[in-house]
Amino acid sequence: MSIQLIRHADKPLYLQVADQLRTQIESGELAPLTRLPASRALAKQLGVNRITIVNAYAELEAEGLVVSRVGSGTFVASESAGSPPQLNEMAYPPPWSGSVTLRQPWNANQMVAEMTRLAQQPGVISFAGGAPASEFLPVNEFRRALNEVLRRDGAEALQYEQVTGYLPLRETIAEQLRQQHIRVSGKDILITAGCQQALDMALRVLTRSGTSVLMVEDPCYLGLLDLIKARRVTPVGIPLDEHGLRVDWLEQLIQRHRPQLIYVTPSFHNPTGVTMPVERRKALLEIATRCGVPILEDTSYDKLRYEGQAQPTLKSLDTTDIVLHAGGFSKTLVPGIRIGYLIAPPLLHRRIVATKQTADIFTSPLNQRALHAYLQSGHFSHHLQRVCQAYRERRDAMLTAIERYFPAEARWRQPEGGMYIWVEMLPDGPTATDLYLAAINYNVAFAVGSVFSASGSFSNALRLNFVTYPPQQIEEGIRRLGKAWKELLTRHDNAGQLSHRATVHIL
Amino acid sequence: MSIQLIRHADKPLYLQVADQLRTQIESGELAPLTRLPASRALAKQLGVNRITIVNAYAELEAEGLVVSRVGSGTFVASESAGSPPQLNEMAYPPPWSGSVTLRQPWNANQMVAEMTRLAQQPGVISFAGGAPASEFLPVNEFRRALNEVLRRDGAEALQYEQVTGYLPLRETIAEQLRQQHIRVSGKDILITAGCQQALDMALRVLTRSGTSVLMVEDPCYLGLLDLIKARRVTPVGIPLDEHGLRVDWLEQLIQRHRPQLIYVTPSFHNPTGVTMPVERRKALLEIATRCGVPILEDTSYDKLRYEGQAQPTLKSLDTTDIVLHAGGFSKTLVPGIRIGYLIAPPLLHRRIVATKQTADIFTSPLNQRALHAYLQSGHFSHHLQRVCQAYRERRDAMLTAIERYFPAEARWRQPEGGMYIWVEMLPDGPTATDLYLAAINYNVAFAVGSVFSASGSFSNALRLNFVTYPPQQIEEGIRRLGKAWKELLTRHDNAGQLSHRATVHIL
Repeated sequence: MSIQLIRHADKPLYLQVADQLRTQIESGELAPLTRLPASRALAKQLGVNRITIVNAYAELEAEGLVVSRVGSGTFVASESAGSPPQLNEMAYPPPWSGSVTLRQPWNANQMVAEMTRLAQQPGVISFAGGAPASEFLPVNEFRRALNEVLRRDGAEALQYEQVTGYLPLRETIAEQLRQQHIRVSGKDILITAGCQQALDMALRVLTRSGTSVLMVEDPCYLGLLDLIKARRVTPVGIPLDEHGLRVDWLEQLIQRHRPQLIYVTPSFHNPTGVTMPVERRKALLEIATRCGVPILEDTSYDKLRYEGQAQPTLKSLDTTDIVLHAGGFSKTLVPGIRIGYLIAPPLLHRRIVATKQTADIFTSPLNQRALHAYLQSGHFSHHLQRVCQAYRERRDAMLTAIERYFPAEARWRQPEGGMYIWVEMLPDGPTATDLYLAAINYNVAFAVGSVFSASGSFSNALRLNFVTYPPQQIEEGIRRLGKAWKELLTRHDNAGQLSHRATVHIL
Repeated sequence: MSIQLIRHADKPLYLQVADQLRTQIESGELAPLTRLPASRALAKQLGVNRITIVNAYAELEAEGLVVSRVGSGTFVASESAGSPPQLNEMAYPPPWSGSVTLRQPWNANQMVAEMTRLAQQPGVISFAGGAPASEFLPVNEFRRALNEVLRRDGAEALQYEQVTGYLPLRETIAEQLRQQHIRVSGKDILITAGCQQALDMALRVLTRSGTSVLMVEDPCYLGLLDLIKARRVTPVGIPLDEHGLRVDWLEQLIQRHRPQLIYVTPSFHNPTGVTMPVERRKALLEIATRCGVPILEDTSYDKLRYEGQAQPTLKSLDTTDIVLHAGGFSKTLVPGIRIGYLIAPPLLHRRIVATKQTADIFTSPLNQRALHAYLQSGHFSHHLQRVCQAYRERRDAMLTAIERYFPAEARWRQPEGGMYIWVEMLPDGPTATDLYLAAINYNVAFAVGSVFSASGSFSNALRLNFVTYPPQQIEEGIRRLGKAWKELLTRHDNAGQLSHRATVHIL
């Protein structure tokens, strides 16, 4: 490790140290888990004050390049701790939100962890999560299905399974998808550990760590942003409007960034709740096909529709096998059995199956068989009806409460389905994080918009999950949130502008 | 795409084409899924015979760089189809096997698939698999545990779970490990989808795709070799002897190859069955600690001991937190619930948890709680006793039959535990693949040794799973295999040397 310092340069000494160490870490010269010299020793060696080295290490730690551990020293971080996505690639104004703030550091994980901790305190009404309502989970039906499977299949249900999954389940899913006009057979389907693994598999095969570009809606599903970070691919955000992904921006962004893949949630988008009409879906397909960029379609929320017409999936409109289709049962049925699926073009299917084999060999045959038995029992459509009716009531209760309790500046849209209402604050007022801190004192929580953006945009938006609580509690939670918001605005008007120290603290 | 050909060069035209395309694929100039020109069109453009292009494409396809699809053309393969590991890195003679053959192509997946297909034909006695015996899987106990959990926890068992896992299960596993003198608490444990996911997580965090070096035993667990291939890390094999990993080779190999990680299965190694005595474990730890190379310890088979003293795990001897400890319940209890675990040093734990979150968010809480309830019921130690007694009888039945039926050239060792007997043929006779093809006609199958080697060594070894069948069927299977082997030797003596066409065909 060699470091050259220039005294009296424009650049402070601590940044000179940090820059040179960063270069050595990124080049691999300093390997992951290498212990850096103690700050005192390095300071002595370089003839600088110890605080210079401490600051340099702190700089690198903030970037996730090193990790310091009390009593042990400072170490080069391992791969997934690496540098944040290149935010300068996010070079477009997100026209929907009207804000182009890039000031937020990329640390959604810590932020979500802290938000989760606060939201889990007793008495808090939390609209922050992504879970379906527990009271509708079909516990008894699954217990029956599990018993039926173990009685019928015995040890086979607990043995090794095909990598691709339990064929009767794959065929049942294929049958459901054919009803949605997707031309597919059971053999085209890979069973995964939830939809998240389907996304992971697609990204592992279609992108190269460090060099690939991935187009995502901005804002976007947080689990996909986590994958982007872990795989060190470069995200390029596509703006959304009330009809979803802005296809008028698409071709220009593709030409400029040459992405390997476009990830999109066409129905009841997480976090914004918007749904693409069929014309826009066709336009997206046409452009992607012409430019030769595969699309990864996430249909996690598709079956949770409370009004209006079902829209065709991209896969059902796809004539050239450019769409990878991912889905699952976590949002519509039960999260805890961890079953999702992925349909990939034949050319990719074999590669994806090989990748699944390296990841966890196969998904639990017991859970696959229980899901299959449940689906065969015919309870699913009844369950969906029941859930959709309840969720519709909850959505309407939340919309009514928002109308009643939120300040006049609040902007939102009525989603046709899914689980979320996206609310925007004024771009130049307090941020959603300010509101979060104010709201938690009133025992109410939500998800801050910026965690859903690779660019750190949407710091003035909130995502509210409307399915978790019955209507009365929803009203109470929104009442509290409205109160916190109005108080915050009063304080903000008085103070001119809030200090952002609190923001830094929670992040 | 530009290709320059030199007529009358030493290098054939088809190799010139293949070499230039390979460079463009590896540099990323030709992106994954790019369609290559039709052979006829490219031949015309370059002014060569079409067969030149067909041969060039076939060359690239054999290397896994392109995929051809009837009716659609030839495409650049996606990442995980990439180039094989750098076999020239395997620059040591594996002294145990005495063979240094590198002629086998790296296509263990296809080979295993084909072997599996053949082995699954009706009437075949297959010693090829890695599954435990179905008749001992505790079906009723698990049915009771599942019912107990769903009665007790209701919807909670089907909801979202912590990324790290169900805390009571983590604490129960920690308690078991503390009995083996590993200093660990429940919070140090990450629950994974089987031990395979624990290995995947460790590799994802500790190695960088494309640049890292991973040390493995040679031969090695196939699922780890699949990970090496998928992550494009460079394997360096460490030879084994009857006491496991050759620590006398270790330091020299570390200095030369500077690996990021050493993967090792110290007890009842898969595929060879050997176990490291405590002195060698200590020597391994000492060298790894001194050289600063983390060790990933796989304990999948540890509890399947049929004789002799239990050896301490590396983790229990580890005083500097250099060991990552992976285990699971697939071999000892049930594969089908997919529960494994990973203990990583605190410095890495947080990164690994973040990676698990991107992979599949969490492991099924239903399965975690059922396993916890099963372990709490106290049945596990009785189950292990029962299984070990049966497996010991089966091991002994196989050893007796081998002694009786195999030709005099066969070499093997009695494993103290685990599931496998490793048998070696003479290095200059017919290969294990020749034997496989001969044996399948006698309705008996096994695993060919070379699939367990990143270098393609051990083509004259076979792995026999001795736990699948009761003793009588084991004897019958070994009798058939011995007969096929002796016949093969007779044919081989007569023919001088067998044609290797058959080998190519099955690969």
